[in-house]
Parts: sequence; structure tokens; C-alpha cells
Amino acid sequence: MTTLRFLILAGSLAAATPTLAQQGTKADPAMLAKIKDEGLNRSKVMETAFYLTDVCGPRLAGSDGLSRANAWTKKQLTDWGLTNANVEPWGTFGRGWDIEKSYVAMTAPYYHTLIGAPKAWTPSTNGALKKQVVVVKAATEADLAKYQGQLRDKIVLFEVPNPPKPSFEPDARRHSEDDLKKMADFKPAAAAATTTPAPADAERMAARRAQFALRTKLTDMVQAEGAAAILSTRGGSDGTFFTSNGAPYAADAKPVLPELEMAPEDQLRLIRLAEAGIPVEIELETRTRFQTQDLKGYNVVAEIPGTDKKLKSEVVMLGGHLDSWHAATGATDNAAGCAIMMEAVRILKASGVQPRRTIRIALWGEEEQGLFGSRGYVKNHFADPATMKLLPEHSTLAAYFNLDNGAGKIRGIYAQGNEAAAPIFQDWLQPFADMGASTVTLRNTGGTDHLSFDAVGLPGFQFIQDPLDYGTRTHHTNMDTYERLPADDLKQASVLVASFVYQAAMRDAKLPRKPLPTAKPENKS
Amino acid sequence: MTTLRFLILAGSLAAATPTLAQQGTKADPAMLAKIKDEGLNRSKVMETAFYLTDVCGPRLAGSDGLSRANAWTKKQLTDWGLTNANVEPWGTFGRGWDIEKSYVAMTAPYYHTLIGAPKAWTPSTNGALKKQVVVVKAATEADLAKYQGQLRDKIVLFEVPNPPKPSFEPDARRHSEDDLKKMADFKPAAAAATTTPAPADAERMAARRAQFALRTKLTDMVQAEGAAAILSTRGGSDGTFFTSNGAPYAADAKPVLPELEMAPEDQLRLIRLAEAGIPVEIELETRTRFQTQDLKGYNVVAEIPGTDKKLKSEVVMLGGHLDSWHAATGATDNAAGCAIMMEAVRILKASGVQPRRTIRIALWGEEEQGLFGSRGYVKNHFADPATMKLLPEHSTLAAYFNLDNGAGKIRGIYAQGNEAAAPIFQDWLQPFADMGASTVTLRNTGGTDHLSFDAVGLPGFQFIQDPLDYGTRTHHTNMDTYERLPADDLKQASVLVASFVYQAAMRDAKLPRKPLPTAKPENKS
Repeated sequence: MTTLRFLILAGSLAAATPTLAQQGTKADPAMLAKIKDEGLNRSKVMETAFYLTDVCGPRLAGSDGLSRANAWTKKQLTDWGLTNANVEPWGTFGRGWDIEKSYVAMTAPYYHTLIGAPKAWTPSTNGALKKQVVVVKAATEADLAKYQGQLRDKIVLFEVPNPPKPSFEPDARRHSEDDLKKMADFKPAAAAATTTPAPADAERMAARRAQFALRTKLTDMVQAEGAAAILSTRGGSDGTFFTSNGAPYAADAKPVLPELEMAPEDQLRLIRLAEAGIPVEIELETRTRFQTQDLKGYNVVAEIPGTDKKLKSEVVMLGGHLDSWHAATGATDNAAGCAIMMEAVRILKASGVQPRRTIRIALWGEEEQGLFGSRGYVKNHFADPATMKLLPEHSTLAAYFNLDNGAGKIRGIYAQGNEAAAPIFQDWLQPFADMGASTVTLRNTGGTDHLSFDAVGLPGFQFIQDPLDYGTRTHHTNMDTYERLPADDLKQASVLVASFVYQAAMRDAKLPRKPLPTAKPENKS
Repeated sequence: MTTLRFLILAGSLAAATPTLAQQGTKADPAMLAKIKDEGLNRSKVMETAFYLTDVCGPRLAGSDGLSRANAWTKKQLTDWGLTNANVEPWGTFGRGWDIEKSYVAMTAPYYHTLIGAPKAWTPSTNGALKKQVVVVKAATEADLAKYQGQLRDKIVLFEVPNPPKPSFEPDARRHSEDDLKKMADFKPAAAAATTTPAPADAERMAARRAQFALRTKLTDMVQAEGAAAILSTRGGSDGTFFTSNGAPYAADAKPVLPELEMAPEDQLRLIRLAEAGIPVEIELETRTRFQTQDLKGYNVVAEIPGTDKKLKSEVVMLGGHLDSWHAATGATDNAAGCAIMMEAVRILKASGVQPRRTIRIALWGEEEQGLFGSRGYVKNHFADPATMKLLPEHSTLAAYFNLDNGAGKIRGIYAQGNEAAAPIFQDWLQPFADMGASTVTLRNTGGTDHLSFDAVGLPGFQFIQDPLDYGTRTHHTNMDTYERLPADDLKQASVLVASFVYQAAMRDAKLPRKPLPTAKPENKS
């Protein structure tokens, strides 16, 4: 059956005759009611989110903030009664990096403080600089030549890709019924035909690669010419700026120039002035600190042990990534996901769960640099996708549930092309249709840690969430802060996740798996 | 006729039989076509806006930026061929004030740069401070007592009135046909009955006064207790923060504490941490400079002389305010208005206008502190509303046109209850119905410099503009920057204003006036 169509089932149907998928489980409806009651009426999810964001601070891979978060989550999970809590190394990551000072202002033609932050893993300015600016624009490599001899001791301004303007669209939205229906109607067979990127996509990807290559040459040229620092921007508006996801964190990375990512409005003012021939002077001081004592990366794991003699060696996992970008406290990316996952296990403990299988929470490190924490964990425990040699634990994983699409409530789940799992999820969602979660889609979704499981044939899933202002305002910006976490959304999601984890732990069989993928030897390029 | 109703007239009607209002004018339809052509096809309004915003910088009353703008606009108007350009003092304002440095960061529990700016006319910190914070919250005066002895040498955090959250409403909008119809349908007779504030309004005003009084007591208490500085916020979100419109600019104002207005997200993080008992340390350095050599305030004026022997002693005025708040470049408030007014006279000169009356542009100072520039000008040239003793020039003013509601295009004009002027405006708008401007409303609008004219019985008017993101994002914020000026809107407005000024200068009679108001002796309280 390749054209499954998932109807939105009303919550009132939950008590009807058990479907095939509902059979073979010891899940207790009373336990689901307890989960809902604990999660909605005695929630601690916002308190947890506060600790992860404000108290731990920004949690860049390898940073002090991430270390604080590792230590705090281990302790908190232990305090809630979880066992085997551990900050577990997954392998070698690279250098840690923290900001100790960041000040940037225009000091001529008049004074104006600028909004910006050092790009991750960039070095200090070695004290305060006061320098003139030069605007560098290059559409092709040939354009680089004209800056020869022009940049020594200057602060270089790169262009602003999408200048802000008055916005007639709201930042935040929720999925419409129509959005959800499209997801539910998705047919993998039809989609398979379009798996090869369409020519337009291929062109776009080639253009992006070319742009990236040009940016690298540009940065190298600016450094070779002896510039003092770079101010750049990736976009944003209103005082919000995006931080970038490429940086030399490797222990042996070659030195780069100090570089700040700026609010576009500020950057544009500097550029307009400079291009009008008005001398612009910048005062700049950044102090950043590299940590090279411990190059390892870590995940935090903790368990609620299984109670069924046969099944307790099997594991249901849930997780989100604990690391974030550095210019804010990573509230929606992904303190929200971690707080919800932590709240889910707290709810289960508080509800007196006696799971048949072991439940294991994992809070991943270094997701933002390439899903490193989850990939390392999967390689260490389950299988290496490069060889597909399965480790013994591979057979024990019942399911992995991930949350990492912001702070919006759960509207359903991506079955990730797993047609046999889909009707099971549909049954699990039945009791929550009145909370807005009723959609199962066979669609794949990417960009986060369930992919590490999917890559070795393990059933890893990500929930569908309301987008809110994740894509427009918070994702990788300096405004990814606690304010962006609507308490009701986080509570709803915590209840949903707890129920899924509970169902997966109580079911007679593990969740069905897709066929094992073939080995994908690592691309060494 | 107290229930005039103004129909939206199609542009195609412009060539029909002249109405009563169209009679008695030497306005040349070919000149209107020239104005449109010059304004739409050879516009300099964005160049002018760039100079006013980016080049002159923030233009707080009495600041260096405002002096630069005074000098530049005088020169530019002269270069365009206007005569009698003058930076004309209107009276005594108070101290000038400029920011020379502003740096604020959280240094414990971890480092984070904060977004904020010194509140206008606050003093320097005298070097860099590193201090602990205390949150001060007071709903009533009695609440102040509990902070006795707690604030010495601390940085005090005031509450955030409206915490940001994900926004489901767009920042910017344009007037709908329905909005405009409501304005056109407005009947002053019906409105007169509600001139006395409704009880709810009165209550709200009383609450606001009480709140202001409490804020003053709070600030006095904090200073008396020996606090080092204050961080406060008036609202905003996403990195945008509002600046306040109350500050001790008088030459003899008593000293206050250094105070910064902060981005709410940053302020809230500090407050949440402090309230959770986590020690928060702030590093703060502001250097502000008071200017007390010249306490006068100024307006910039310049003229296109009239050519009709009888009428050239009469004047048509147009204006906007050149001053702004200090945390941005006052692009929509009100560089936009000034750039459009300057562009209007440039268009007229470039179109070879030979106006019967003299046209005089005025760029007002110190509007943000209470319409001081225009009030002073009106008092010096026309009449003092406190005495209503009319000066000779009072009889010479044909009309004053103002623009100060952001950067949105013109949709019509507020006739300010002047029923005799309304049909004249309706006729003048006819040729521009295809540019979206066709509404005349008898409604009053307030808050800006036409009120200074209206207060002494002179015909002063403000145009209706599309709101865009003026009320939500730019008005008195740190994001009132050049990006917020849509070129097409500014061009349209320039053409409209030029045509109105031209019409008023060519009409046989001055614009009709409302009855003279009675003298309003100044409230000395």
C-alpha cells in the first residue's frame, strides 16, 4: 500500500475498537491521562528552558556555555530520578571558543554604536582598533584584483545580501489545515520520481557552491592584503542579525582575520557613507578565547530503566541538540527541543511510569557543525554508515524521536518514508487530536539529528511543529532568546513526546524498520 | 453645510467643467504635468534623505547632528536656487547633547554584549563601571521603601512593560479603501459631541499621569540611594528599542543618573537571571557631551519668491521637522518629511515655477520636545496663542502644509475641521487619484507642527499617509533608518506636496480660515 492516506481522526475516536496498530501493546490509557495532567498542570518546561537559555547562556560547540549545559542537564536529569546520567564523549570535535568582549562603533563621521558579534571561532583584535573602512564588492574572481594594495590596515566591509525594508508579512505563523492536509496527502512513490534535483535546484546548488568558493577567495585576498578586520552580514532586520555556519574550529585551522557579523541596517549605513566618499572610522575591540585542552565533543545521556525482563535491554530514545549558535541563547534552536525532551522524561517519572523498554534521553553536542554529536553516538553504539557493519546495540533500538524545528507546538510527525510505522503513529496521535496534533506524513524532513539514525536504518523521526517565527526571526540569529518560547506550545509538545515515548516503550514489538541502507563510504574530498 | 461628504473622484474627471473651487486660480495644468514628470523621473528625494539621515546622523534637539543638518539644508536649498535661506533662531531651547561612547555588556554569569543607548540628556559614567545589578519594581509609592539601603553602587534594572513574543501581525500596512472611506465620511458635528474625553479616556490619562509621577519618584529614590546607573526599557522587540521623550535638557536641570534604554530581550534576560538569585555583573561605559555655549533653538527657512505684484507679499509655507531622536538617524521621523518638502521645492524650481505668492519652506527644530521650533516661529511671525495679539504677517499666510507621519505615500489630507478648505483640496487631489491620493477628511490630526499654526487660527494642514511600519517599528526607535524609506512612496509624496504648494501659490484668494481661536494664557503649573 503505497498511497496511504491519513485522515485527521477526532479525539473522540480514541475509545473505539483497537486497530491493528493498537494491538500488541501494554500501554495504559490511564497513564496517557496522567501524562497529560502532569504535563499541562504541573509543567516545569519553562523553568528548564530558562536554565538552558539564560543561565547556561549561548552554547556553541566546545564553548563554556555548552559545558555548563552538559553539567546542568546531567545533574537535573539525575535529580529527577533518571539513572546512568552521563556526559559521554562521542569523538574529537575541535577547539572550544568563547567571547570575552565585543565592542564595535562608528567613530567618524559621528559616533554610533553598532550591533554585531564576532563570527564564531574568529580571533581577537588584540586591543581596540581605530581604522578607516573600505567596501569590498566582488561578483567574480576578476573583481578581486582591483583591491590590490588598497586594504592594508583597513576594516573591510562586505556587502549586505538582502537589505531590510518595511515588512508586510508577519514573522510568525502556524500551519493551516491546508498545510497539514498537503503533508498528510504526500505520496512517496510520486515524490521518488523527483529525488534527483530538478535542473533549477541543481543550478541553485551550483550557484551556492560558486558563491561560497568566491567568498573564500575574497576572505583570503583580504587577509593577504593585510586588512585589520572584516565586518560582514548574512541578513536579518530590525536589530536582528544572522550568524554564519562555517568557521575554522579544527585545532589546526589556519588563522583568519577578526570578523564580526553585523546588523544589516548598521552595515548598510557604513557602506552608503563610504561609497559616498565620506571617511568612515570604526572602533573595534573583540576578545575571544580558544580552548584547546579538550578537543572532544560530548552528548548528555540518561535513562529510565525498562522493567520488562525480555524488553528492558531494548531502548526507546528521544533527543534534541544542546549546542547552539553564539550570538543568543539558542532558545528555539534548540533549547526548546531539549527542554521538551527533558520535560517528557520528567513527566514520565512524575507519572510513575514503569516502561517495558528502557527510555534514554540524549542531548546532542555539535549539531550545528554537522550533526556531529548524534552521528558520533550512532557510530559508537549502532553502526557506521560508511561500512554498515552493525554493532550489537543496532538490534535493540525501538525508535528515536527528535525535536528541532523551533518552539511551535507539535502538529504531527514525519514518518520519514516508513510506511509501516505511519499507521502506528496515527493511532498514537488519536488521543491528541483535540490538542492540534493529528497529522502523519510520509515525507522526509532533514537538517537535524534523526538523520543520523535514519542513515543506518534505524527508525528515527522528527515531529511536525508549527513554524512560528523560527525561519524568519530566531533560527541562527542574535534574537533566539527565551521570549520566543510560548509556554503553551512547549507544554503541548512535552505531553505529545512523553506519550510517544511511552507508547514505543510499551509496545510488544519495536517500531518497524525500513530496509537497511547500503554502506556509503565517506567522501574524502 | 456641516455634513459635507467628499466623494473619491477619478483622475479622469480632472478635465471636466471647473468647479467653484477651481475657479479663481492661475494654476497651469501643464505645470502640474511638469511637476509629476520631474518628481517621478528625475527625483533626488532619496539622495536628500541619505544626506539627512546617514550623513548628518541622529539629529537630537541641540545636537551636533542637528547643527550639521541645519547647515547642510541651508546650503542645499541655496544651491537649488532658493533665496533668503537662513538658520533662524526661534528662542531658547536648552542644552545640546551628543553621545561620544556607549558600551554595555553583561560580564557575569557569562559575557554578552547588550543592545541599548544612553537616554537623551543623561550624563557620562565617568569611565567604565563594573557593577552588580538590582531589579527595582514598584507598582505603588509604598513599594519604594523596600529598596532602602539596597541600591548603593548598584546598576538598577527597571521592568519591561510589554515583553516581546512571536509576532503574528505584520509590522507594515497601507490604508485600506475602508480606512479611507471612514476618514472621508467623518462628520465634525457628530464628533463634536465627543470632544470632552470619554470617562475611559479620562481614566487612562489619569493612570498615565500617575504612572509618570511614580516613575519620577522611583528615579529620584534610586538616585538618592546612591545607585551607579539605571537600565530601563520602553518597549520594542527583535533588537529594536524605543527611546523616551522626557529628559532634562534645560540648562539648569538637576543632575540625573546615567541611564540607558535597552532592547527588551536583553533587559529581560538580566532581570530573569537576577530574580533567580544569580549574580549579574554589568560593564557599562557611556560618554556623553553637553553643549551649553548656545542654548538657542533654530529653524531652517528658504524661499521661492512670489512674482505677482499684489500677492508676492503673501506666503505659502511647507515644512517638516529636522530634529529626531538620538538612537537612529530619524529616517521616518522625520527625515522623510523634510526630504519630501525639500524635494517639492526642488521640483518646483526645476519646473521653472513662477509662483504668484512666495513659497517658503521651513525645517523645524526641537519638534520632539514639544513642537518648539514651529511654535517659536509662529509666535515670532504670526501670533502668540496665549494673547492672540496678531502680528502683521498673520494676514499674509495663505496656507501651511506639514508632513510628519512616516515614509508612506500620501493618500489625501486632513482638512483639520476647515469645511471651506475641504472642497478646494478635493479639487487639487483630482489629478492624483491614479497615484492613490484622493481622500479629504475633516478630521483633526495632531502630534506635529501644523498644530502650531492651527493654534493661532492659521490654515495649517497635515497630509494623510500610509502608515507602513511607522507606529510599530520606526517611530522613536533605534531602527528609524534609511532602509525604512520606500523610494516610490517618497517620490509620490514629493509630487503631491509640490502640486498643493503650487496650487496654493497660484490661487486668487488665500485658503479660507476657521474662526480665530480665543487666547489661551499659558498654563504656568
